[in-house]
Amino acid sequence: MTIPFDLITTDPNSSARRGRLHTAHGVVETPVFMPVGTQGTVKGMLPESLHDLGAQIILGNTYHLFLRPGHDLVKKMGGLHRFMNWSGPILTDSGGFQVFSLGKLRKIDEEGVRFQSHLDGAHQILTPESSIEIQQALGSDIIMVFDECIPYPATRDYVIDSTERSMRWAKRCKQAHNRQDGSALFGIVQGGMHEDLRRKSAHDLMEIGFDGYAIGGLSVGEEAEVMYEVMDYTLPELPADRPRYVMGVGTPENLIEGVRRGVDMFDCVMPTRNARNGVLFTSFGKISIKQAQYREDERPIDPDCDCYVCRHYSRAYLRHLYQSNEILSSMLNTMHNLHYYVQLMAQVRQALDEGNFATFYKEFYQRRQSGVVLES
Amino acid sequence: MTIPFDLITTDPNSSARRGRLHTAHGVVETPVFMPVGTQGTVKGMLPESLHDLGAQIILGNTYHLFLRPGHDLVKKMGGLHRFMNWSGPILTDSGGFQVFSLGKLRKIDEEGVRFQSHLDGAHQILTPESSIEIQQALGSDIIMVFDECIPYPATRDYVIDSTERSMRWAKRCKQAHNRQDGSALFGIVQGGMHEDLRRKSAHDLMEIGFDGYAIGGLSVGEEAEVMYEVMDYTLPELPADRPRYVMGVGTPENLIEGVRRGVDMFDCVMPTRNARNGVLFTSFGKISIKQAQYREDERPIDPDCDCYVCRHYSRAYLRHLYQSNEILSSMLNTMHNLHYYVQLMAQVRQALDEGNFATFYKEFYQRRQSGVVLES
Ligand SMILES: [Zn+2]
Ligand SMILES: [Zn+2]
Repeated sequence: MTIPFDLITTDPNSSARRGRLHTAHGVVETPVFMPVGTQGTVKGMLPESLHDLGAQIILGNTYHLFLRPGHDLVKKMGGLHRFMNWSGPILTDSGGFQVFSLGKLRKIDEEGVRFQSHLDGAHQILTPESSIEIQQALGSDIIMVFDECIPYPATRDYVIDSTERSMRWAKRCKQAHNRQDGSALFGIVQGGMHEDLRRKSAHDLMEIGFDGYAIGGLSVGEEAEVMYEVMDYTLPELPADRPRYVMGVGTPENLIEGVRRGVDMFDCVMPTRNARNGVLFTSFGKISIKQAQYREDERPIDPDCDCYVCRHYSRAYLRHLYQSNEILSSMLNTMHNLHYYVQLMAQVRQALDEGNFATFYKEFYQRRQSGVVLES
Repeated sequence: MTIPFDLITTDPNSSARRGRLHTAHGVVETPVFMPVGTQGTVKGMLPESLHDLGAQIILGNTYHLFLRPGHDLVKKMGGLHRFMNWSGPILTDSGGFQVFSLGKLRKIDEEGVRFQSHLDGAHQILTPESSIEIQQALGSDIIMVFDECIPYPATRDYVIDSTERSMRWAKRCKQAHNRQDGSALFGIVQGGMHEDLRRKSAHDLMEIGFDGYAIGGLSVGEEAEVMYEVMDYTLPELPADRPRYVMGVGTPENLIEGVRRGVDMFDCVMPTRNARNGVLFTSFGKISIKQAQYREDERPIDPDCDCYVCRHYSRAYLRHLYQSNEILSSMLNTMHNLHYYVQLMAQVRQALDEGNFATFYKEFYQRRQSGVVLES
């Protein structure tokens, strides 16, 4: 019994898909962007504000919550949804990515990954079984298999060994996963930037059988063209009737290119992390709010944006907040950036519903590349 | 023409007063607590959240806004209300207090205070005239006279000289103030902890004539008993038909004692600053959320509090956010603390309206001193 995924329409001119994913905590309209809530909070956002700007599903980080406050505590407090006051669906990553990016002195063997906590140096181990156990204790709606995120570049031999081990781990995750709570389990395609290894990984996963399929190991420093190539040859291998998720991607352009190739789900820290650094996404490109040119700029961040921030605040005020190192700077910038990402996907869904994704695609690039701020 | 202040009722058993102050941006029910918005934002709060928790009027800091982003810019952006998206009344301090607490190498003479900015070391000067000009450029509803906040302890000679100069400055402020924008001007009683000097200062101010009268130079390190003594002998000197404001005070107990002595208005950074340090005010006393005892505590901060935070989050979650240094920690803690302060004054007003302030007063202390957390 896989979780229901309705494929509503497919674009006649591309591989873009309009879908609907049913989870234990509600329906997710796809394509969808999932804001990242690393430590049990999407940084600087009230859950109600996330809901108001249209976020349907958020991502929680197994590595962080395992180390602090601990999955046992979260479980005792009624699970992550209740703990953090988010009643919508939650997808949790497996901890694999963070073990490799944050964990110290890590050692991989067949059993799993031994590492030292980046918080206090404590010795820890994550295995396929413990990763699933943690994610189930958190009460995740969509659980990811534990895998190794292969560094880039890597030798072909390293990619082969790592991917084969990740596939054995995926099998152990499937065995460890208890479906009785209604949670879904997604497999993750690895294989580096090698077409044959990606195809093999996809088929190995399909043989095991998952509710959905992710592409991992992207956005690790490769050129955008390489990323798109991997999508091009991997996505057609995956079953059409299951959701497809590209992990950790990316820029607005990356998302649109992913959609065009048939991706249904995305997550990325880019809108939230950039917001805290004063970098704002708009329909006409990125702006850095700290720049002196915005000192007396009465206009909203994006005259075409109807978010709470753009309806009430000037660039001059947002620059002042950033310069003054005010908490409200992170709050408002995050709100706008997430609104931009989430609403970009809402526009994509509307275009697919109305059968004009090709027009949308063309206009998206015209605006983004114009660099022109239209007067409001 | 002074701004209208209605004295609605006076407590038969104390000097507590229930009033209503009319400003250019709306009515303020008194007694009232005013959250502090130092740099054009109440730290960590959306203006809408301030409104939702019952804040009626906020305080802006002349010193900070003068240095950054500059009052000319704020004026150009339509004034402080529009700049920061707060449509209710705003009281601005005069910059006097911050010049003395933050300014470097300050030099006082009859003209004003020369100092170096704590931000960039730039040489600046604030005078009675420039302070009023800045506050009017900001679009303040209640403007405070420029004075010296006398350090504590100070010699009697210092207090006499300083208070006399502040009274001369108060006169210059009155002359500089343009009433055409509907703004009010409040005088500030100084005189240190000396009864005769406080009385003289009050009378000097009344001779000049102001819309309201503040007591300055409290909460500067003196014992609470000394503060109450100053209130005891100063407040009766002030005209009953004008609002009375004790600046920079204080703890919940300080506020209740002020109310009982006839104070109408308070401001303090305590609820907001403490919030960011994880210290939370409750009906049964203060708690420090970082303590290990709250690790698995499913209860809200205060089972008797009906604020957004207490309705949705556990102490365990708030402790986790604090330990994880999350922005949401400051946001939620601030929301609860301001709700506590603002609602404490709402309870005071209700007790005065219903004629049972004496009972309220007794029960307030019983709860606050019990240290007991009632089960929810
Ligand atoms: Zn916006
Ligand atoms: Zn509360």
